[in-house]
Amino acid sequence: MNVVSTVDPRDGRRRTTALTETDEPRLEVIAGQASHAARWLSGLGRLGRADLLDAIATSLEARRGDLVAAAEAETGLSHSRLDQELTRAAVQFRMFGDVLRDGGYVEAAIDHAADTPLGRGPDLRRMLVPLGPVAVFGASNFPFAFSVAGGDTAAALAAGCPAVLKAHPSHPLTSHASAEAIAAAVRDLGGPDGVLATVYGEQAGRALVRHRAIRAVALTGSVGAARAIQAAIDERPDPIPLYAELSSVNPIVVLPGAAADRAEQIAEGLFASFTNSGGQLCTKPGLAFVPSDPSGARLVDTLREKVAATGGAILLNDRIQAAYEKQATAFEQAGARVSARAQIDSDEGFRVAPALLEVDLPGLTAEIADECFGPLMVVVRYADVAALDAVLATVPPSLTGSIHRGPDDDAGVVRRLVDWFAGRSGRIVFDGYPTGVRVSWAQHHGGPWPSTNAVHTSVGATSIRRFLRPLAWQDAPAWVLPEELQDGYTAITRRVDGRLEQAAR
Amino acid sequence: MNVVSTVDPRDGRRRTTALTETDEPRLEVIAGQASHAARWLSGLGRLGRADLLDAIATSLEARRGDLVAAAEAETGLSHSRLDQELTRAAVQFRMFGDVLRDGGYVEAAIDHAADTPLGRGPDLRRMLVPLGPVAVFGASNFPFAFSVAGGDTAAALAAGCPAVLKAHPSHPLTSHASAEAIAAAVRDLGGPDGVLATVYGEQAGRALVRHRAIRAVALTGSVGAARAIQAAIDERPDPIPLYAELSSVNPIVVLPGAAADRAEQIAEGLFASFTNSGGQLCTKPGLAFVPSDPSGARLVDTLREKVAATGGAILLNDRIQAAYEKQATAFEQAGARVSARAQIDSDEGFRVAPALLEVDLPGLTAEIADECFGPLMVVVRYADVAALDAVLATVPPSLTGSIHRGPDDDAGVVRRLVDWFAGRSGRIVFDGYPTGVRVSWAQHHGGPWPSTNAVHTSVGATSIRRFLRPLAWQDAPAWVLPEELQDGYTAITRRVDGRLEQAAR
Repeated sequence: MNVVSTVDPRDGRRRTTALTETDEPRLEVIAGQASHAARWLSGLGRLGRADLLDAIATSLEARRGDLVAAAEAETGLSHSRLDQELTRAAVQFRMFGDVLRDGGYVEAAIDHAADTPLGRGPDLRRMLVPLGPVAVFGASNFPFAFSVAGGDTAAALAAGCPAVLKAHPSHPLTSHASAEAIAAAVRDLGGPDGVLATVYGEQAGRALVRHRAIRAVALTGSVGAARAIQAAIDERPDPIPLYAELSSVNPIVVLPGAAADRAEQIAEGLFASFTNSGGQLCTKPGLAFVPSDPSGARLVDTLREKVAATGGAILLNDRIQAAYEKQATAFEQAGARVSARAQIDSDEGFRVAPALLEVDLPGLTAEIADECFGPLMVVVRYADVAALDAVLATVPPSLTGSIHRGPDDDAGVVRRLVDWFAGRSGRIVFDGYPTGVRVSWAQHHGGPWPSTNAVHTSVGATSIRRFLRPLAWQDAPAWVLPEELQDGYTAITRRVDGRLEQAAR
Repeated sequence: MNVVSTVDPRDGRRRTTALTETDEPRLEVIAGQASHAARWLSGLGRLGRADLLDAIATSLEARRGDLVAAAEAETGLSHSRLDQELTRAAVQFRMFGDVLRDGGYVEAAIDHAADTPLGRGPDLRRMLVPLGPVAVFGASNFPFAFSVAGGDTAAALAAGCPAVLKAHPSHPLTSHASAEAIAAAVRDLGGPDGVLATVYGEQAGRALVRHRAIRAVALTGSVGAARAIQAAIDERPDPIPLYAELSSVNPIVVLPGAAADRAEQIAEGLFASFTNSGGQLCTKPGLAFVPSDPSGARLVDTLREKVAATGGAILLNDRIQAAYEKQATAFEQAGARVSARAQIDSDEGFRVAPALLEVDLPGLTAEIADECFGPLMVVVRYADVAALDAVLATVPPSLTGSIHRGPDDDAGVVRRLVDWFAGRSGRIVFDGYPTGVRVSWAQHHGGPWPSTNAVHTSVGATSIRRFLRPLAWQDAPAWVLPEELQDGYTAITRRVDGRLEQAAR
């Protein structure tokens, strides 16, 4: 059996771990346990699962020190960032606890038997039910919030679906420790093995996706990873959904009035947004459209100074480091000029130089309007807001589109940009930055291809919908119905004979 | 240009029509008009689109005589069935009018800016917005309710998505007349071309799916058709969702107590359910599990008499006729014996003999537990209810599973069957038949593969979700927000800061 190794990005040193890559016999055991655990999760009911999610949040926080230390050594991300991310992971589990207690997510609907224009209609009752065990591919860049203890896991368990996590090779020990934290909470509630399991190794990931027990796959990763997983799904006799959150350029348009109003402030915001976490965020702004007037020049000058004054960034692994260097070179070859580049203070580990590139509007090509994963942003200087519409067509659809406006900017221009971003992004940000995604009921994380492949979201309360399917009961005796569909049940909001009946408080 | 022909299944005669197969230049025009129409539909707003849907329903009913006559000549389905189906089509448009007036389908959510465990959270507002133009592949067996004037069209237009229909080759003139009826309603409201368009020919269907303007595909058809459409989608640079409603066996279990209680009544219900519309319904029961005791024998005897006394059935086209004959022969070769077969009274057109086949429980193979599109049902005789669990594993997942119980049947047995069907179907029917799908808020039409490929439904109010995607606005000024997301808007139910606020009445 292949031993799993871990690398510290701060010095590049590889160490072996006590973990081994998951082989086929072990995967069979895991899949069997997951199928068994599905019945346990379902039997817990909504409120029981809410308690489980709260207990998982508490268990993660109780191990905060160990988890953050493990992630620091495997990702090179800062302590404060990882500490925040662990809080976010706990918040996500607790949010889904609230979603379960609310219960509206099951979309319960009852149509009593009635005369219709097509004759007598039967009694029909419908709600969403769990899909079954799901596979989740953890992300490199969020060792907690999009990995074993991440939002996909929280959404899956909330839905009643056991989760089998493919651990990202960048942080196997963090993944293992996270799985232990979750398992401890499950054990405390008397739960079986298989509510959450972790597999290691690419081979195991492919076998997992092909396994008959798996009913859906969630991925936060690259377009290449999505294609490989889809190819494995295509080998199944039965297709299953793949929810993939992929690549995003996240353009930001700074209108002339905004630059005139607060050039330095925007420069600081942009700098933080594209360099924090080594620029390794799917919502990192990769393109900023800045006016070529004096205010825009002031903005870019401030950005330049900040980039030049910063140090090297440590990236997650050698592949991301190599891809960053390659993409930066490709941008230059496509005509973007280096506006500022940081000094790398050490050649240890996976360090790169944060960089600001610049191009004038007619020079923005599809090559430059591509994602660069890491601390690089391209500033596109434009002379005339009227030219923006045409040039934005070069930019691929994204998770987000941002607009900075000032008091002097024309409402018509803003309206046109909003319409543009509405068609080509999943979230429109005003006078802010796309990074720092709020986890809440109204949040949404997704967008037209290539930012995601799905019409769903991977963040926020409604991301649970991905792991549910509708089931209807026709003329069923009351005793076989789930409690949510029985007459007189008032704990959740339901649609009865077409009318919404709000939950009793 | 290839001329489109039409065939009368009652006599098999082929006639040319004035329609031609859609070529690439014409498809470009249609796609351009659809993109333009998307803006018009969106501009109408929810209430405007509700009026449009009502007008379409009225327009269809105003042309009832012509539409039903066209469909009779192209499908061989009975006048009364087609008349009912046109009513169902109108009901579907009107139901989505109600869905729009209710407005809950946009899932509006507002999280005001607030302090969170992760710092200050921005103001976030989210709702579902239209995907853009969608392609719909009409079904052979429902010239109205699952074709040009069908539920997918109604759901798409309700969502704000123009629909481009690939007309089924079995009923081009009905498709054309339906499109005219819808176009008339659009014109009366001042709408542009492209709100609904129809394309003809297989080549055009493939080109449609590959067209960059198309954002989703809905299909009611065969697994083969779904694979061909998926292959065309795979040629796109950007994947788009395919919502496919496919093959289904719809097993019915008659428990001993039910047979003892009402053998003849169940026989009549089963007979009607598998022979009506020539058995060409995706919810047709293909397998009935009947006890091998004297009550079960009475049930089967009654069924036999009814089958023997019926005449030939006219199927939709020669391919369906040939597939029916082939599948019936395959069942016999796999060990099912012919229990009864109708007499065909004429060899004109696409006539086949409705048939009842029979097999004893150990003899049920995967070959026999396969869908046969047409008026054929296999009765599976079982001696012991305890054996049902194992044998149901032979039956592929279906749209529906039905259970007939009598006063003497054991609740534990019923509970086990319910659990079984919950995992392997989309709708569980008690003491009834899966055909005659009620169109209502709680209805659901879908199930695990191969009955559908999706976690959505193609019937009922929630089928609109297939053509929507989430979009979020962060810190947006009120004047750019859709009215549904503005503070103080009370016309629809929304989730505000996590709490459901019901629409004002």
